[in-house]
This record gives sequence, C-alpha cells and structure tokens, in this order.
Amino acid sequence: MKRLVAPSILAGNHARLAESLAVVEATPGAEWIHLDIMDGHFVPNLTFGPQTIKDLRPDSKLFFDVHLMLSRPDQYIEAFIDAGAQNVTIHTEPDYDHLATLKRIRELGSQCGICINPGTPVEDLLPYLDHVDLVLLMTVQPGFGGQSFRTDVLPKIETVAKWRVDKGYQWRIEVDGGVDANTGQDCLKAGADTFVAGTAFFKNPDKPAFVASLQG
Amino acid sequence: MKRLVAPSILAGNHARLAESLAVVEATPGAEWIHLDIMDGHFVPNLTFGPQTIKDLRPDSKLFFDVHLMLSRPDQYIEAFIDAGAQNVTIHTEPDYDHLATLKRIRELGSQCGICINPGTPVEDLLPYLDHVDLVLLMTVQPGFGGQSFRTDVLPKIETVAKWRVDKGYQWRIEVDGGVDANTGQDCLKAGADTFVAGTAFFKNPDKPAFVASLQG
Repeated sequence: MKRLVAPSILAGNHARLAESLAVVEATPGAEWIHLDIMDGHFVPNLTFGPQTIKDLRPDSKLFFDVHLMLSRPDQYIEAFIDAGAQNVTIHTEPDYDHLATLKRIRELGSQCGICINPGTPVEDLLPYLDHVDLVLLMTVQPGFGGQSFRTDVLPKIETVAKWRVDKGYQWRIEVDGGVDANTGQDCLKAGADTFVAGTAFFKNPDKPAFVASLQG
Repeated sequence: MKRLVAPSILAGNHARLAESLAVVEATPGAEWIHLDIMDGHFVPNLTFGPQTIKDLRPDSKLFFDVHLMLSRPDQYIEAFIDAGAQNVTIHTEPDYDHLATLKRIRELGSQCGICINPGTPVEDLLPYLDHVDLVLLMTVQPGFGGQSFRTDVLPKIETVAKWRVDKGYQWRIEVDGGVDANTGQDCLKAGADTFVAGTAFFKNPDKPAFVASLQG
C-alpha cells in the first residue's frame, strides 16, 4: 500500500483556508488534504461545512478526505459529496444506519471510511470491513487539534493491520491525532499507511522532509 | 436608534473569508459583520466555528455580530466570546436555560440577542426583553443563504417595535433573511433598525449605495 500523508486543514488559518490549502499543494509528495467536520454534538467543537469544501475545491488538485465528526452524518452525505468530497469517513459510535450510509457514500461516487475513537473497542469495526475503502483510528479524542498522541491505540493498529493481511482487504489504515515524525513512525511500524498530520505539518519548517519521512 | 447594515459573511467565499471580510471593511458606512454559526442539528447546515471567528478577528475593526443557530448554544458561549464575538444571539426554540445563557453572555463582556424563527410566535420573546441588547427576527427559515423574504414577518416587526416604544426598551431590532434594498425598506418602515444582508450585499455592484439606502 502506497503510504500517504494527509495534512489536516484544521491546523490551518480558518480565515484563509485557501492559503493553507496552497501550502499543502506546494509541498512535494502531498496528495491528500484532510478536512475535519465537527457539529458541536458528537464532538465539543464546530469547524467547517459543505460550503467550505465547495469553495476550496476549485483551488485544488488534492484528494479531499472528509472526516465527518457528526452525530447524524447520514443527513449530510449528499451535501459533502456534492461539494467535492472524494472520501467520506463516518464514525461507529453515534446511532444511525452505518451500513446504509457507507453504501450511499459509494453510490454517490465517493470512497468511504469507518472510524473509531480511542475509547471504542477495535472489534466495533468488524461489521464494516467488507464495505469500506479506509479504516480510520483516532489517536486522540476528537474535537481539537494539537493534542498528545495516545500510544494505547498502537495495538489497535496492529490488530487492524493483521485483519487486513489475514482477509486480503484492500482498505487504507489511517491514523489521526498527535501524529508527528516520531509517533508517525510508531504508527507506520504498527501497520498504518495514511497519516493525518495537523500541527506537525503546518508548523514544520521542512514540510517536504516531514512528508518524505512518513511516505518513504 | 442609529440604523446599521450587518453584511453576512455566510454569502462570502468560505475558503477566503478574510477577503470577504475585507470587502465589508472597505465599504463606507459598514460597521458590523454578521457571522452565522450552524450545527447541523438546530438547522440543516454546518458553517463556521470559534476558530473562524478567532482567525478573522485580527483582520478587522468591525463589530462581530455572532448568530448561534445551535440547539445547545449555552455550551459554546465562552468559546465564541473568547474568539472575539461582541454580540451573541441565541434562539428561543431549543430547550436549554435561555435566561441563564443571556446573563452569561453579558457577564463575559459581550452584548446579547434573542432570536425567533418565522414560525415562532412573537410572544415567545417576552420573557427575555428585559435582558437583551438585540431582538433578531428571522425573515426566512434559517439554514441557507439566498432565500426569499417572508412578508408574514413584517407584522411581528411592528409588534416588537411597539413594545420597544411602549416600554422604553433600548435594544436593536434586527432582521435576517432575504433582506435586499426593497424588503429592507419594508422592514425599516415596520420598525427594524439593523439589517443583515448576505447575497444582497456581496452580489451588489454598488455596496456603498446599498448600505446608505438602509442606513439613511
């Protein structure tokens, strides 16, 4: 699996997102952008909406990896895909029809991902593994950027990576939260291939070297 | 009461909000900016968060008029005032402690407003009129920009304006939704003094004339 760094625009300037996007676009090796959508209900913060994606889309050739931290993501699938999402990741924790939502994402022409928070058992992913393009393991409790990496998630990455080998799955294993050059290497060794990085990317004076260190 | 136009950045470019803010800033007579915060629960859309306000704040001398379309605004008062809100408006419709929330907004040094949707009886405002700096009457069902003005709200503006005269209140009467040069005049005649304008401002080739037409 080709390794990828997905800088998270959550750590960019929210008044000038197009400029933050351009920084990613100008970094050699960067192919993905990660967009964190928060509703103030599933997580204790609010961030961007479909119009943000739509207004960023014409500026960019990056792959738009949209992470819906919403308690009712099923109600917003069309809006985010119409706006330009190319992968839409949803969480297992809230109560809605997860499988129908994953299928709907694909029907609308987007890739789909399933995500668990650090406190959620890794086995909760099992019902969805035949129906996704990406498995996202949160390595912090979602809501805010700049948090410390949770090392207790590393065994979950190993478990998911073993499932992928055993069953021949093709989905990506993405990690998100406190991922920097050091913790990223730990995730890589555990089996992750897709690295969301916010602060560690945007505050890094040598972004190409940071991306290369994880993408290999 | 001095009349004011408050352009709504909802109608700006969400990838380049600082540029949209600068357009307002450069318009003679513009003193306020209206910021619509939506949680995908109280209204069927998601827009901006506290970080957006914070990142816009250093660019601007405008008065930040923040409209919380949230089902639990009480949980986000500190975040938005810390970010730079100077007025925070909340809705009567959701279930939370409205009076305590209004008091908290003032305690934190911001002005406060109370708002009703077009379908909400105007009498629902009565418990709050001694405790606010602004009364906001939605002239569309909130959620999206570009909707048509609801003329059935005009009698509510008249009612609120009469209450203000009768009781000697000092709060502003703000209208929001489908307000343009024509419907704005109708609101003005009914008693409004603060005019939120999105599309009608940002798409207007002569913004100073539009502002002057309502501010007088």
